[in-house]
Amino acid sequence: MRTALVIGTGLIGTSAALALAQRGVTVHLADRDLEHARTAAGLGAGTDEAPAGPVDLAIVAAPPAHVAGVLADAMRRGVARGYLDVASVKGGPRRELEELGLDLSAYIGTHPMSGREKSGPLAATADLFEGRPWVLTPTRDTDTEVLNLALELVSHCRAVPVVMDADAHDRAVALVSHMPHLVSSLVAARLEHAEESAVRLCGQGIRDVTRVAASDPRMWIDILSANPGPVADVLADVSADLDETVQALRALQASDEAKRHEGVTGIEDVLRRGNAGQIRVPGKHGSAPRAYEIVAVLIDDQPGQLARIFADAGMAGVNIEDVRIEHATGQQAGLVQLMVEPKAAPVLTASLRERGWAIRQ
Amino acid sequence: MRTALVIGTGLIGTSAALALAQRGVTVHLADRDLEHARTAAGLGAGTDEAPAGPVDLAIVAAPPAHVAGVLADAMRRGVARGYLDVASVKGGPRRELEELGLDLSAYIGTHPMSGREKSGPLAATADLFEGRPWVLTPTRDTDTEVLNLALELVSHCRAVPVVMDADAHDRAVALVSHMPHLVSSLVAARLEHAEESAVRLCGQGIRDVTRVAASDPRMWIDILSANPGPVADVLADVSADLDETVQALRALQASDEAKRHEGVTGIEDVLRRGNAGQIRVPGKHGSAPRAYEIVAVLIDDQPGQLARIFADAGMAGVNIEDVRIEHATGQQAGLVQLMVEPKAAPVLTASLRERGWAIRQ
Repeated sequence: MRTALVIGTGLIGTSAALALAQRGVTVHLADRDLEHARTAAGLGAGTDEAPAGPVDLAIVAAPPAHVAGVLADAMRRGVARGYLDVASVKGGPRRELEELGLDLSAYIGTHPMSGREKSGPLAATADLFEGRPWVLTPTRDTDTEVLNLALELVSHCRAVPVVMDADAHDRAVALVSHMPHLVSSLVAARLEHAEESAVRLCGQGIRDVTRVAASDPRMWIDILSANPGPVADVLADVSADLDETVQALRALQASDEAKRHEGVTGIEDVLRRGNAGQIRVPGKHGSAPRAYEIVAVLIDDQPGQLARIFADAGMAGVNIEDVRIEHATGQQAGLVQLMVEPKAAPVLTASLRERGWAIRQ
Repeated sequence: MRTALVIGTGLIGTSAALALAQRGVTVHLADRDLEHARTAAGLGAGTDEAPAGPVDLAIVAAPPAHVAGVLADAMRRGVARGYLDVASVKGGPRRELEELGLDLSAYIGTHPMSGREKSGPLAATADLFEGRPWVLTPTRDTDTEVLNLALELVSHCRAVPVVMDADAHDRAVALVSHMPHLVSSLVAARLEHAEESAVRLCGQGIRDVTRVAASDPRMWIDILSANPGPVADVLADVSADLDETVQALRALQASDEAKRHEGVTGIEDVLRRGNAGQIRVPGKHGSAPRAYEIVAVLIDDQPGQLARIFADAGMAGVNIEDVRIEHATGQQAGLVQLMVEPKAAPVLTASLRERGWAIRQ
């Protein structure tokens, strides 16, 4: 790939443009908002001048609702040899293009699985996609040349290509992203009018469950509006399980022993299925389940304490895989949980103790 | 308080005993399993010999289902001046004691809000409760002397006393702990039989939402069995919201413009209520909403890199409030998100850049 045209210079478009420009590809930048394209050009993502002739690859990075229209326009103008989009849903845009009667052999729908809280060209970075899955949805009609252009883009962005059927992709993101997001919002919504005395008792569990509920509603309305069917389906499955769980809890209140036993069985089933599903969530390096040991160190929140802990861990030759800082309610004291390979835990514990740290067993 | 009797030397009982013993209180340890009491004594939590006469405070740390029976037995034997339990539910045990016709002026129900993944006396630590809320549920019949004994225990354990009505406590923990736990399990359960290609697309969002679903089902069956009513009530509220959300998503699929608009409004409502609830979740220091800025640093996962980041942050005089390490799928590269006070963010960014770190904008 020697030339590319990025249409839509927001976060994703500009980040891809930056990665391509760094690999020596000549990138042309276009946006409905000329200022955005100029900003992206100013960041070194390419030129905001139109290409003289067809480029190798046109990358459409418009919001889901506009993707098909922008693609159709670009294809009719013949601006490129190959066309792809990066929208978060794949089935709808393809069907819209089919309805417009376009030849789709030069088109491939894709979805890089990386987002940020921020948006716009100024939030862009060439490494946005590094190590993340980038879904490609070729069909039997897709030109091999176009598939290879897409693979080249993914490679330049240092992402990991994952080939999927468009509708399977939409169901997958409904399951692993859109549904959990809505459920997180539903849990958080219960706190909106809760009493302050109850809210004070929140711990790390609910903090984790509700974290994504802090996201910008506008972006999520766009995402969910583009994938309502699959999200509704998986949310309805959750709803059915939830109703059974409520029934199991009600059974636990029964005076009848057999009924209560039924309740216990129902609750146990939910919890065990939760265990079985949770262990499949990919941890740090790809899909290996997390098997770290936690070394918990007490701190009193003075600046420099974390630095000292990590420096001391480094001296012990131990690599910290993950960190969680747990703070006490209304106090400065806290606990730093260092996650390490199991064999490194005793080494780290002994080493930190020797250096005067209080380690929780 | 000069003498105490801890009945039930698991994680909570032994931890409280360790804290009291460290403050010079003479602690007697009792457990149905004599080996447990002996282990606790061996850890320095007190003596496993029975007290010669009544102690100042009896602390019953038995599982919720057994609490009332153990308390009633201790009160009938007159082993102490004051009695308290530490079970995770408060309404049920009190009602059981009332039904047994006991004088409850010498009793106070309490609940320290600190748990661990581990259990048993060997997991105990004197600082288990440090800075955590410890709920006390006195009634108008509770002797002031007994309330003061409980407050002394909480103070010795360096926890933060929170006075609540017993039933309000049970509704509060249903809301902020038990319901979110079950919902996390329900989301995770959806992954149990999901296709591997879908599971590969999991990101940080679902990882957070499903983290607590990894907990031991046995312990949670006990907890939920002791509080089924309030948990069922709040879960039913979630279920009603969920059903409305499914309907809103279905409306988004309609061909009718007005219907679709209804769908958007419904989804927006859920997301905005989620925002409003999430911001109430206490962050680091008590109930202040989190208003940290994130400084994101690229790392390549070599030992010592985190130490260097924290050391460099320390040199800039910046206190790191929280850390999140985000790892790329199948790669060693990762991103360390440092959460700092907003005014400290530009200082930290400039300082780390100067020292050669790649900062994501």
